[in-house]
Amino acid sequence: MSLIVQKFGGSSVSDAEGIKRVAQRVVDTQAAGNQVVVVVSAMGDTTDELLDLANQISSDRSAREMDMLLSAGERISMSLLAMAIQEFGSRAQSFTGSQAGMVTDAIHGKARIIDVSPHRVLTTIERGDIAIVAGFQGISQESNDITTLGRGGSDTTAVALAAALGADVCEIYTDVDGIYTADPRVVHSAKKIDTISSEEMLEMAASGSKILHLRCVEYARRFGVKLHVRSSFSTNEGTWVLPSPDDKIKIQEGEPLEQPIISGVAHDRSEAKVTILGVPDIPGKAAEIFGIVAGAHSNIDMIVQNISTRGTGKTDISFTLPMVEGKEALDALNAAQDVVGFEGILYNENVGKLSLIGAGMRSNPGVSYKFFEALHKAGVNVDMISTSEIRISIVTHADLLDTAVRAVHAAFGLDTDEEATVYGGTGR
Amino acid sequence: MSLIVQKFGGSSVSDAEGIKRVAQRVVDTQAAGNQVVVVVSAMGDTTDELLDLANQISSDRSAREMDMLLSAGERISMSLLAMAIQEFGSRAQSFTGSQAGMVTDAIHGKARIIDVSPHRVLTTIERGDIAIVAGFQGISQESNDITTLGRGGSDTTAVALAAALGADVCEIYTDVDGIYTADPRVVHSAKKIDTISSEEMLEMAASGSKILHLRCVEYARRFGVKLHVRSSFSTNEGTWVLPSPDDKIKIQEGEPLEQPIISGVAHDRSEAKVTILGVPDIPGKAAEIFGIVAGAHSNIDMIVQNISTRGTGKTDISFTLPMVEGKEALDALNAAQDVVGFEGILYNENVGKLSLIGAGMRSNPGVSYKFFEALHKAGVNVDMISTSEIRISIVTHADLLDTAVRAVHAAFGLDTDEEATVYGGTGR
Repeated sequence: MSLIVQKFGGSSVSDAEGIKRVAQRVVDTQAAGNQVVVVVSAMGDTTDELLDLANQISSDRSAREMDMLLSAGERISMSLLAMAIQEFGSRAQSFTGSQAGMVTDAIHGKARIIDVSPHRVLTTIERGDIAIVAGFQGISQESNDITTLGRGGSDTTAVALAAALGADVCEIYTDVDGIYTADPRVVHSAKKIDTISSEEMLEMAASGSKILHLRCVEYARRFGVKLHVRSSFSTNEGTWVLPSPDDKIKIQEGEPLEQPIISGVAHDRSEAKVTILGVPDIPGKAAEIFGIVAGAHSNIDMIVQNISTRGTGKTDISFTLPMVEGKEALDALNAAQDVVGFEGILYNENVGKLSLIGAGMRSNPGVSYKFFEALHKAGVNVDMISTSEIRISIVTHADLLDTAVRAVHAAFGLDTDEEATVYGGTGR
Repeated sequence: MSLIVQKFGGSSVSDAEGIKRVAQRVVDTQAAGNQVVVVVSAMGDTTDELLDLANQISSDRSAREMDMLLSAGERISMSLLAMAIQEFGSRAQSFTGSQAGMVTDAIHGKARIIDVSPHRVLTTIERGDIAIVAGFQGISQESNDITTLGRGGSDTTAVALAAALGADVCEIYTDVDGIYTADPRVVHSAKKIDTISSEEMLEMAASGSKILHLRCVEYARRFGVKLHVRSSFSTNEGTWVLPSPDDKIKIQEGEPLEQPIISGVAHDRSEAKVTILGVPDIPGKAAEIFGIVAGAHSNIDMIVQNISTRGTGKTDISFTLPMVEGKEALDALNAAQDVVGFEGILYNENVGKLSLIGAGMRSNPGVSYKFFEALHKAGVNVDMISTSEIRISIVTHADLLDTAVRAVHAAFGLDTDEEATVYGGTGR
C-alpha cells in the first residue's frame, strides 16, 4: 500500500463536472489499494471573482483581510470535492490549511511554511478515509491569523504534506501530460520527459518552464519528495521528478542505462534587460548598483559586466530582471545616478531568454560548441550568456526566441514525431 | 463609552455598495465614542449559489462538508467589510466563528452554542479597533470541525457575543424599521413598537413574526441582553427588546407610565392542521399519537382535544405542525393507524394562525371578549384556540387571515396614520 498525495489545480475543478471527474480519479486511486491525500486549489474563476470584489471596495487592501478573503476559495472547492467523493461511496473529510497543520510565518500574501503537523490528516487516512486539504493556505504561528502562500502555493502545500507524511509520491495534476523537452506550443516536436532530477527541474523552473513552480521543486529536493507531474485528463504516465540521481537510475531499471545528457530547452519572455553605461570601474560599484535594485524589491537574474575597454576607467554592466519590476528599479537607479556616477541607462523589454538544461552537461565539453553552433546557423545573435554546471542560458532578441528554441531542441536530438497534448490554463 | 454589537444580515451586504454603506455606519458608531463589534452574514445570494453547486454534485450531502462549504460565505463578506472600514481610515480585523471563540456542539447544520470565549475580539476592541465576526458559524468542541448554527444563526451569534462581552446593546439591523404591531404588508396602519419585553417578543416570534428568530430572543432573555432592532437604511430608532420589565420602564423615563396592554398581532401561514378522528378515549392515547409525530421529527404547535361527544368512547384530536413536516408525520401516523386504533385522518394546509400578544393581557379579562368580538364582526370563524398568560392564538381559514389580522389590530387601537417602511428580503 502506498501513500499518495494528489494535487489538483483550479482548472481541474472549475465546475461541478470537473469536481466529479477529479473525485472519480481519487476514488480509483484509493480502490487500487492506496492511501490518498488530496490537495486542491480554488475553483477556476473564484480567485478572480474575489479579487474583483475587493477591488470594488478598496484600492489599498489589507494583506491580512485579503488572505481571509481568498482562503474562502479552497473551502468551497474542497468541501464540494469531499461531497463528490462521498457520492461515489467512499469516505472523505476536508481540512483547511489550519486544520491540516500548515503553520507559516506571518507574511500575508506570500507566507513561508515553517512547520507541518498533519495529525488530523494522518488519523483520517489511517482510518481508511480520504483526506482533502486546502492548498495555498495556512495559519501564522505568531498571530493565529489565516495566511496564503502566494505563487506556486498549492503545489508547495502538496509537497510539504507529502514530506511531512512520508508519502511515496506527490502527484501534481496539470493540463499537460508532463514536463516537455521544450514548450510544445513553440516546438511541436517536443518530447515528454520520463524522468528528470530535482536539480535539473530546478533549472528548468528557474529558466521559465511554467509547469512546476521553483518553490515547490526546491521543497521537494530539500525533503527528498518524489514528484509525478501528469495530466488530469488522461491516465498516462507523466514526468517523474526525482530528488536524487540514484532514484533516477533505479526507476529506469530495465531501460537503457545510457542517460540522455540534455533534459530540455526552457524559454522565458518575462524579463527585461537593463544596461548601466559608463560605470566607474572601481571596486564596490557593481555591488552599489545591485543594492539599489534590491532596495526596489527587484530580483536580478543574469548579470554581464563588460571589460573596461575604452581606457576610460569606465565599464558597462548589464543584467536582466522581471519586466513587471522594471519601472520601480529604473526609478531607483535614476534617482541614484549622481551618487553612483554612471553615465546612462538602456532599458529593453524586447528580449528573450533561452536555457539548455542537462545533468550530463558539465562532463561533456562538446555541449557548448553544439549549442552556439546551432544558434549561429539559425541566425540568432547572442546578447548575454550565463552558465551553471547543468545549464547554459542566453539572452537574444525576443522575435528570434522561438527560432532559437527550435534550433537548439533539434540540434540536441530532442525532437520526436509524437504530437504533444496541450490543454491550456493555469492554476494557483 | 458603550460597547455595541451590530449585526447586519445578507441583504445589507449583498454587493460592494451595501458593504460600503454598512462600513460607513460602523465607522460612524465608533466615531460617536463607542467600542464596536460587528457580526455579519454571508452576502445576499452567496448561500444560494453554494447550495446550488452542492446540489449539482450530490443529493445526499454530508452535513460536515455542507458546514465547511457554507462557512466560506461569511469569510467573504467579513473580510470585504474589514477592507471597506479600513478604506474609511479606521482599523478593523475580521474573525471566523472559530477565531471569535464560538464553541458549539457537533450537530452540523444546526449546532447549539455551548461556550463563547471572545478573547481575540476583546483584545481588538480594547486596542480601539473594530472587530468583525462571522455570523452563523462556530467550531465544535468535540471534533474541532466547522459548524453552522442553522436558522436564526447570525442573530444568535450577535446576541451570544453581546452576552459574553457584556455589551450595552446588541443592534440587529434589518430591512424594516423595527417590530410592528402587525405585519405592515397586511396591516398598512400597523405601528412601530418602541419597546417590548423579551417575553412578549418571544411570543411574537413563536407566533410567526419573522423579524427576530425565536432562538435569538430566547438567548437574549436568558442572558439579559438588550436588543435594538432597527433599519440599516435609516438612522431612526427601532424597537428595543428588553429582558426585564424594569428596564422597559426605565428606558421610558419621561414618557407616560401607562403601558399599552397589547404589543401586537402576529400571524403565520406556514402551519397545517391535522385532525385524528375517532381516537379511543382512554388514557395514554394522545401521548401515543404525539409520540408518533415526534418520532417523525415534527414539532406540534397548537393542540385541541374535543370532548367525547358521541357517547362512543371515541374522541377527535386536532393539532397544527409546520407544513414542511406534514408528509413525514402523516406517513408515520398512517402506518400506526391499527396499533393506535383511530378511525381516520383529516389534513388541511389551508389554515392560518393569528396571535394577539401583550404582557398586560393576563390581568385584563376584557381582552378575550374584545378579541373574539372583533373576529366575529369581521366574519372570521375560529377553528382552534390556544392561550398563554401573554398570548391568545386562533386558527382560521387561510383566506380569512388578513381580514382577521386587520380586524384585531384595529379593535385594540393599534392602528396609526404613519406609513410603515418595508424593504423586503431576509438574511440568515
